[in-house]
Amino acid sequence: MNLQYVIKDIVRKTDTKIILLVIDGLGGIPHPTTGKTELEAAATPNLDKLANQYICGMIIPVSYGITPGSGPAHLALFGYDPFKYEIGRGVLESLGLGIELTSRDLSCRGNFATLDYDKNIVVDRRAGRIPTEKNREICALIQSKISKIEDVEVKIVAGKEHRFVVVFRGEGLSDKITENDPQKEGKPPNAITPLEKEAEKTASIVNKFLNEVKNILSKHYPANYILLRGFAKYPEMPSMSEIYKLTPAAIATYPMYKGLATLVGMKVLPVPGETIEDEINVLKSNFGAYDFFYLHVKKSDSYGEDGNFEKKVEILSEVDRFIPDILSLNPDVFVITGDHSTPSAMKSHSWHPLPIIISAKYAEKANTYVKKFCERECMNGALGIFPAINVMPLVLSYAGKLDKFGA
Amino acid sequence: MNLQYVIKDIVRKTDTKIILLVIDGLGGIPHPTTGKTELEAAATPNLDKLANQYICGMIIPVSYGITPGSGPAHLALFGYDPFKYEIGRGVLESLGLGIELTSRDLSCRGNFATLDYDKNIVVDRRAGRIPTEKNREICALIQSKISKIEDVEVKIVAGKEHRFVVVFRGEGLSDKITENDPQKEGKPPNAITPLEKEAEKTASIVNKFLNEVKNILSKHYPANYILLRGFAKYPEMPSMSEIYKLTPAAIATYPMYKGLATLVGMKVLPVPGETIEDEINVLKSNFGAYDFFYLHVKKSDSYGEDGNFEKKVEILSEVDRFIPDILSLNPDVFVITGDHSTPSAMKSHSWHPLPIIISAKYAEKANTYVKKFCERECMNGALGIFPAINVMPLVLSYAGKLDKFGA
Repeated sequence: MNLQYVIKDIVRKTDTKIILLVIDGLGGIPHPTTGKTELEAAATPNLDKLANQYICGMIIPVSYGITPGSGPAHLALFGYDPFKYEIGRGVLESLGLGIELTSRDLSCRGNFATLDYDKNIVVDRRAGRIPTEKNREICALIQSKISKIEDVEVKIVAGKEHRFVVVFRGEGLSDKITENDPQKEGKPPNAITPLEKEAEKTASIVNKFLNEVKNILSKHYPANYILLRGFAKYPEMPSMSEIYKLTPAAIATYPMYKGLATLVGMKVLPVPGETIEDEINVLKSNFGAYDFFYLHVKKSDSYGEDGNFEKKVEILSEVDRFIPDILSLNPDVFVITGDHSTPSAMKSHSWHPLPIIISAKYAEKANTYVKKFCERECMNGALGIFPAINVMPLVLSYAGKLDKFGA
Repeated sequence: MNLQYVIKDIVRKTDTKIILLVIDGLGGIPHPTTGKTELEAAATPNLDKLANQYICGMIIPVSYGITPGSGPAHLALFGYDPFKYEIGRGVLESLGLGIELTSRDLSCRGNFATLDYDKNIVVDRRAGRIPTEKNREICALIQSKISKIEDVEVKIVAGKEHRFVVVFRGEGLSDKITENDPQKEGKPPNAITPLEKEAEKTASIVNKFLNEVKNILSKHYPANYILLRGFAKYPEMPSMSEIYKLTPAAIATYPMYKGLATLVGMKVLPVPGETIEDEINVLKSNFGAYDFFYLHVKKSDSYGEDGNFEKKVEILSEVDRFIPDILSLNPDVFVITGDHSTPSAMKSHSWHPLPIIISAKYAEKANTYVKKFCERECMNGALGIFPAINVMPLVLSYAGKLDKFGA
């Protein structure tokens, strides 16, 4: 039984308001010399007070021992089973580049590559990692010459170095096709072939596209060829308004998170700037118009990925200083958590559980031991250690939006 | 979505090494007079130190309130859903007697019984619990007269008292047949009948076997008949090397655990002797050749089953003395847990959760309160209280063998 179907049956529209603050890569592990995690090292008096006054726990992003990417981690937080709703690599890259996708779109990742035209073998899968500038230039060149293949629109968007994204927009496209990337140098590129009958049109379109690109690039050594992979259709998933009867809004500065919010039907509010303060201002000025706010702080994750313990600590302390501003809006439910851990010591996402606070009516004074918002104290909180997929049902209940299940 | 499929997709081969120490029946409940569990009464300074330095929790073997047999408890520890992979009784008994099974084999349990030949009713389902000696003698007699029924090989192996095992080895055998055991005395034995078309050959073979045995035993009162039940085919399950890309080895002294290890594709290393020291020596001399070691200590469970609190405590203290030896091998991940609880006070397996330590890089200093390796402290560990099926994903992550799930 899908939990979301149960929720859909018992949820009702109310005028209570929810703020979900997602501090990206929040969780950490003890620093090898001080023995303190980033949260333990940060000055977070406001969060500590909330942790002490309300209910805490630790969330497991996707499943024990599983290190999630941003996609599955966010889906789980929004109440979507990340094993059921997989977001293909092409879609995620498109979202990351800020491309607005529609349900007709087929996305894929591209690499500029070097092809030995005489032998027809790929000699460099990354075309010597051409600079981003050059990449933009070649993408613009291709786009100027190809905008459509038959009735399918084609959009090419440059990424970093040799990477780009192609979006095919049209009717009846399928992601059940093979990739032309041979994955190894010294091999010829593969033909794109359909993996099912319904994908024949798509394979033919993509092959024609590749041929046209080849004609355009043949003299552009080292970037004289392209390799495509990670074909993915825009995933069909029910919206948060459909499932939860919410009117949700997203406040984020990075394209991928705005894209993920769009996937679940949130309205993405434009943020004029990149700071947490800019985001809080957007929250304040839109607080009347929505009943669910996904507020995303990115830099904690970025510094974690860089292995910069001190800077991650600074971001956590900075977030803390805005907590009174958020509280002044009097949300009915204010949730503070992250999507996953990004321990500075590991310089990457990890599988470690991470803290959560739910501050709301009926969540007061629920913990015995929690005096600080950190891993070691929240693990003894009244919410226990639990999979993140359960956050939304909890939040909806604390918001007074869930009726009794069964009689 | 099956968790193992997810793992299979993201796991990679590395040269890190894992030791899983399974102290059978590890968990206990407080002694009625001292109020201490076996682990609390044991002298375990080395385990206590690990519990304090690394990450702890409590595992639920199969599901809340479920007392598992050794089969499901071990499967869960190895990451196999014990509700999906059922090991039939006949197979488990065969493994317990040290029979090496193949995928063609159909196993069942047998009882010598007393049949009233005139009335054709079973008058004693256990043939007066004949001595094991007698059992061996009759089994040898039957085996000497029957080695094959048609194209199916037959193997009869004596167990204890009136119990034995029969293995039918051949093509196209099925366990979808009824049993001849009427389950009650005073009733005639049932005919073996097929429960599906594909089982007709098997039913015919087993009925022929029963008739031949009847001819052989008719004069062997009280053991003048046999009752068969628990027919089970060797279960098809993916190997640990297939799912986890591991090269796993098992070090155990009791046949059933060697058999369980074989089921999941481990190499069973011969142990010359029966002591923990013998097992540790095998671990040491084979440490270079494998990357996963299942190390099984049996006697903690045996003494628990006997209700011998003091002897169980002694075994736990003995295990502790070998911890430095194991640590001297520098495994990347060292897990200490059990398959289930066997509280001496209950003289049986039980459903109680039991402690686990995972000692590994990135698992350091994770718990606030745990000072001792015991039930009451580990329940406050950073791993929380969680189903044992999640142990393998955690262990693989701590061993650096899992890539990110999704992007």
